[in-house]
Amino acid sequence: MTESRPTLGVGMVGYAFMGRVHSQAWRNVASVFDLPVRPAMAALSGRSPGATAEAADKLGWAAVETDWKRLVERDDVQIVDICTPGDSHAEIAIAALAAGKHVLCEKPLANTVAEAEAMAAAAKEAAARGVRSMVAFNYRRVPAVALARRFVEEGRLGEIRHVRAQYLQDWIVDPEFPLVWRLQKDKAGSGALGDIGAHIIDTAQFIVGRSLTGVSALTETFIKERPLAEGSSGLAAEGGAGEMGEVTVDDAALFIGRFDGGALASFEATRFATGRKNALRIEVNGSLGSLSFDFEAMNELWFHDHTIDSAEQGFRRILVTEPDHPYAGAWWPPGHGLGYEHTFVHEAKDFLEAIAAGTDPAPSFEDGLRVQRVLAAVEQSAAEGSRFTTVEDS
Amino acid sequence: MTESRPTLGVGMVGYAFMGRVHSQAWRNVASVFDLPVRPAMAALSGRSPGATAEAADKLGWAAVETDWKRLVERDDVQIVDICTPGDSHAEIAIAALAAGKHVLCEKPLANTVAEAEAMAAAAKEAAARGVRSMVAFNYRRVPAVALARRFVEEGRLGEIRHVRAQYLQDWIVDPEFPLVWRLQKDKAGSGALGDIGAHIIDTAQFIVGRSLTGVSALTETFIKERPLAEGSSGLAAEGGAGEMGEVTVDDAALFIGRFDGGALASFEATRFATGRKNALRIEVNGSLGSLSFDFEAMNELWFHDHTIDSAEQGFRRILVTEPDHPYAGAWWPPGHGLGYEHTFVHEAKDFLEAIAAGTDPAPSFEDGLRVQRVLAAVEQSAAEGSRFTTVEDS
Amino acid sequence: MTESRPTLGVGMVGYAFMGRVHSQAWRNVASVFDLPVRPAMAALSGRSPGATAEAADKLGWAAVETDWKRLVERDDVQIVDICTPGDSHAEIAIAALAAGKHVLCEKPLANTVAEAEAMAAAAKEAAARGVRSMVAFNYRRVPAVALARRFVEEGRLGEIRHVRAQYLQDWIVDPEFPLVWRLQKDKAGSGALGDIGAHIIDTAQFIVGRSLTGVSALTETFIKERPLAEGSSGLAAEGGAGEMGEVTVDDAALFIGRFDGGALASFEATRFATGRKNALRIEVNGSLGSLSFDFEAMNELWFHDHTIDSAEQGFRRILVTEPDHPYAGAWWPPGHGLGYEHTFVHEAKDFLEAIAAGTDPAPSFEDGLRVQRVLAAVEQSAAEGSRFTTVEDS
Amino acid sequence: MTESRPTLGVGMVGYAFMGRVHSQAWRNVASVFDLPVRPAMAALSGRSPGATAEAADKLGWAAVETDWKRLVERDDVQIVDICTPGDSHAEIAIAALAAGKHVLCEKPLANTVAEAEAMAAAAKEAAARGVRSMVAFNYRRVPAVALARRFVEEGRLGEIRHVRAQYLQDWIVDPEFPLVWRLQKDKAGSGALGDIGAHIIDTAQFIVGRSLTGVSALTETFIKERPLAEGSSGLAAEGGAGEMGEVTVDDAALFIGRFDGGALASFEATRFATGRKNALRIEVNGSLGSLSFDFEAMNELWFHDHTIDSAEQGFRRILVTEPDHPYAGAWWPPGHGLGYEHTFVHEAKDFLEAIAAGTDPAPSFEDGLRVQRVLAAVEQSAAEGSRFTTVEDS
Repeated sequence: MTESRPTLGVGMVGYAFMGRVHSQAWRNVASVFDLPVRPAMAALSGRSPGATAEAADKLGWAAVETDWKRLVERDDVQIVDICTPGDSHAEIAIAALAAGKHVLCEKPLANTVAEAEAMAAAAKEAAARGVRSMVAFNYRRVPAVALARRFVEEGRLGEIRHVRAQYLQDWIVDPEFPLVWRLQKDKAGSGALGDIGAHIIDTAQFIVGRSLTGVSALTETFIKERPLAEGSSGLAAEGGAGEMGEVTVDDAALFIGRFDGGALASFEATRFATGRKNALRIEVNGSLGSLSFDFEAMNELWFHDHTIDSAEQGFRRILVTEPDHPYAGAWWPPGHGLGYEHTFVHEAKDFLEAIAAGTDPAPSFEDGLRVQRVLAAVEQSAAEGSRFTTVEDS
Repeated sequence: MTESRPTLGVGMVGYAFMGRVHSQAWRNVASVFDLPVRPAMAALSGRSPGATAEAADKLGWAAVETDWKRLVERDDVQIVDICTPGDSHAEIAIAALAAGKHVLCEKPLANTVAEAEAMAAAAKEAAARGVRSMVAFNYRRVPAVALARRFVEEGRLGEIRHVRAQYLQDWIVDPEFPLVWRLQKDKAGSGALGDIGAHIIDTAQFIVGRSLTGVSALTETFIKERPLAEGSSGLAAEGGAGEMGEVTVDDAALFIGRFDGGALASFEATRFATGRKNALRIEVNGSLGSLSFDFEAMNELWFHDHTIDSAEQGFRRILVTEPDHPYAGAWWPPGHGLGYEHTFVHEAKDFLEAIAAGTDPAPSFEDGLRVQRVLAAVEQSAAEGSRFTTVEDS
Repeated sequence: MTESRPTLGVGMVGYAFMGRVHSQAWRNVASVFDLPVRPAMAALSGRSPGATAEAADKLGWAAVETDWKRLVERDDVQIVDICTPGDSHAEIAIAALAAGKHVLCEKPLANTVAEAEAMAAAAKEAAARGVRSMVAFNYRRVPAVALARRFVEEGRLGEIRHVRAQYLQDWIVDPEFPLVWRLQKDKAGSGALGDIGAHIIDTAQFIVGRSLTGVSALTETFIKERPLAEGSSGLAAEGGAGEMGEVTVDDAALFIGRFDGGALASFEATRFATGRKNALRIEVNGSLGSLSFDFEAMNELWFHDHTIDSAEQGFRRILVTEPDHPYAGAWWPPGHGLGYEHTFVHEAKDFLEAIAAGTDPAPSFEDGLRVQRVLAAVEQSAAEGSRFTTVEDS
Repeated sequence: MTESRPTLGVGMVGYAFMGRVHSQAWRNVASVFDLPVRPAMAALSGRSPGATAEAADKLGWAAVETDWKRLVERDDVQIVDICTPGDSHAEIAIAALAAGKHVLCEKPLANTVAEAEAMAAAAKEAAARGVRSMVAFNYRRVPAVALARRFVEEGRLGEIRHVRAQYLQDWIVDPEFPLVWRLQKDKAGSGALGDIGAHIIDTAQFIVGRSLTGVSALTETFIKERPLAEGSSGLAAEGGAGEMGEVTVDDAALFIGRFDGGALASFEATRFATGRKNALRIEVNGSLGSLSFDFEAMNELWFHDHTIDSAEQGFRRILVTEPDHPYAGAWWPPGHGLGYEHTFVHEAKDFLEAIAAGTDPAPSFEDGLRVQRVLAAVEQSAAEGSRFTTVEDS
């Protein structure tokens, strides 16, 4: 078989949860979408040679590196895909951009505003050289979320009054759940706030096309200590049997706030909402209509049109699987829903198309920095008696 | 027909929306429940003789008064039911209690903490004389809400972590909607906050059996001016054609906060949630389970039991119409749902039973005062840059 | 108080479940709707003097009769409301009509086609004398069902292709549930078929404005014998402890069929759908749109408009509580839902208005006969190997 | 990279909708599941050389054949995957089995009972030689459906009383939709009946572990003639502009029936349910519990447990994404749902594992034949006045 279209080699750093999902995306994107350029799964980087080779074999990567710096240097790598915890994002991304590699970086962009600023600056400088970068806020690429954005953009909601967003999970409700890296500030930056709160901040700002300008916040760590993981479990804190370690991040973060343009915000991110597994929920109320979304039913967008005859108004369950819905036409017939990983396929598609077109993809590192600044304002407000705290200008 | 059971005469003040619903309750309660004492719809009080007579005729009241003071004095009135706007609650309730009449008072208990304190003091004093009082937070008497309370009381939810409550309406989204009394601070005390925010505060505190101890809040008035109503429309501000008046209350109020016992709170009350008609929603997450309720589907309680086999966990849609559900057994067979007004029938039942039993019904004026103090803390926080504000001890 | 409007005395026969609900309707209808004529709850008839007096006292009836024939003769009774089992409908209704009394008769109209024919003939003859009659298919008066009818009438669904209707209950799943009158053919005529199947037949025919022309059916009795009730339990078959009696009616009835106009029908009535309490569900698919309804969420009508832009199509959850929805405007504000009994209030309203206007109310006894003929065709088809059986012309 | 595990070469016939989905499965299965044997996408067969090469390039097939007979003969092909219309299934499958190739065949197994019988016989003979075959009823592999089967198998539903199944689509509601191959009896065998009716028959029989023993049916073709497709559109009937052709299959098929074991069945398959896109719905009621599923919300299984305290009963929305749910553990964390194509990945996994284990996978060709016999009984009943028709013994 001859492939007429050009390919771009991808090098991925990290092969845990995010690495698995990104692999799925690179493996499938060219079979679903008609792309101007196709990805080649060139190399996977991880610290443990054996585990990395095993992952590469299973996930479909052609080669293995045990040092991300070598990965970045490879000639067959034109795209660096960063799937590591947040503490390493800045170093890898800045190095890759400096080496002229396009960079796709998992969220949150970084663990601190300072790192995120450095990354955004590097991205800006790289863009001038035609090197592209994108932060992986994948939920923008849920077809229902993209459709929500379209409705707002078309003015279907009128003036936005309310944005209420929740990201509810329950995977650490059990106090015996161990002290994994996501519960350690030095690795993860923050807890529910940065992990899932970042997602609803970005997704909400994307949908309404507005930025949060100030917040008043509360955070809480319900379980102060957790068991250390026994033995060598990679990123989890290790310890002997029965040893406990301090949880150094938030279990839950809540804030209210304001968007430019006048809308009110009510946000909540928690890993203690028993029974809610991945409930990323956003509701937007405008003067002409409303939207509601819950990722646990990700193929549905609920839309209320306030301009039609009141006797027939009601929230519509739009099954976002029609050919004229964002991304959906490339997949299966109407009603044949998509799953979580498809958002990453869409991300890969948009990133590759932007590279081919020579344009800057979104969300940019600048967008990632903007989210980081909201996270910082939330933490500052929570630390200062919940006082209303302005989000620093980007 | 001979009626063997004693009756208590009811005198009601006000016959607008609340008066109509309360009438429905008094008219039906004895036909649904087996009561130790039955109500007699003795007299209705209103300022306009004609309109009051017409209302009494339609709603089933035996007599009419045009001065509530006369109503309170009537010998055939043992219960005074106050259905007027909040600015008159304190005066009427205190007078009625002083006259030895049991008092059922619409919510919010009053427009200010000072008034509410005076009322609570009067109620306490009256209780010592065997005179009962209750504030009409009717949503406690939705069978699903009462069942939610039962589950929490039985420990089914474990330690409560999160309470998120919203009361969403949309009836003033249109800027042409006139300046009715509910939009005027001197009549209504506050806007969405006191009208519907008060409901979710009471209902949430009732369900979890805990009190809000502090809040951080934002309020907003989206539409600053509205048309004055033309001509004599009773409680609406009057004016000539085209004249505008200032909206002096909030359109929306949001707060985050803490409950005693450690739960986090996220609350929102708004009249600008387009498409949401009467969405009083409460979700509670505990260490052992969760509950979710939306008044727009008032016969359903959603319950997640986190203690059973994880493969069969899920939020259950409990249709709260079984004989062993609160209040439901007196009505129709399973699946034959109830409506809004039934909550008032249950209220009347519980009030009458408490009077007959010589016990103090709940929610008491003290409970109403507690809600008032939360409302005051919300307003204070909103006025002071959202800083965390402690709810004054009751 | 003077009542300027005329009243009509109501005499009701039977005070079990249906009698309680009808009482609720007569007690409230004039307080909710502005009626040209008001009902007076004149007399209640039942066989047991004590129990009837107790029921009358509780439900609000002014007098008591122990023989329905006396009730029919009373001068203060202008309306006879028949709430007895089906085996007595014909005799009472025909006598009442002969006595010049307007008749409201519970469904199914009768236990046999022959009885129903006699009743329809009597009603026709009485109508010529200005005496009105109506069969109490209350589900037509659910606001959501009436709105569904309006949508079909306005052509919003285009050509009707499919009607699928289910009435699912589960109250006799337990084999220890006793042999009540509803499980005895001589009292009830049939089982699920006549009790709840009759409802979906009428409701579906009402919504689509078409009649079932032929059916192919299956019926089944899962539990062949049940315990006799001990002692004197009124209408239940009595017996000693441990005695069993034969169930002589169907537990479930299913049929497929055709409507005039070309739509296909799929119907199912059962009392063995574990977990379904009162799930009267109807879905209608037309060339231009679809409707879906489930009585367990009775304030909602789901409507799909197939004529709008496909990217924003979806079933809308219309909360049928708006002022411009059928019946809803007389009750509470939007979002303050109604319950089961309200359908009977609407029935009473429409019946009283028709009497006052001198018009024939619907559904007529002729409509009831039409349903009876469908029931008969179902039974005949089931008895003859499910062969397609034409519904006899009315 | 060295691959330590053995591979099996796959040759696929057809690359339209089913071919695209099957390709997705072969491409991903080994990256998601730990398999004893991995598939190699060896060759794709299609009639048009150019289009087939293009499809192979996009979908990831290593080679191309334009004659399926050559594909079957290839040494690098050990598995033949048949994704063509039903009229060619028998010939290809029988040839492939004869050549010692394992066969995965799309459903319905064949267009006639005779063909299906020949295929089942060939499969039986091949199985004796260690050659495996499976019919691709993919919906068995929805995790929620597999969980439903588990619940029934564990006795959680008790005695099954009712199975109601619907498969509702709307893609040919428009009379201008052209006469594609699925609307032609010679290509497709039947219409909605064989295409989607076959799915609910298999899925329902799989869940309850019982077989349909007899049916009473109706079928209908609402639109008798449709436009011929212009020009060469592969499988669509061709014709000049404006030419019409006869629709020779059913648009909708309904039947009621009985399962061995005593349950009643109510089934409906239609392409005219406006607004329903891919609503494969199954509800099962048993003496101890009930299950409900709708593919439009494919990650949810609703389960009612009738054995627990009645005050807390209710249908649970089980999000079937937990590690202890069928197939789900290999994918993403809880709440990160799957999509349509994943059912095919699971199918590929089970097929490969069965081959490796030397066992016969399910559903077998015999299972496919059983479905075919139900389809035949439905058609016969519909042709003979809906009389109850016994399903021929397999």
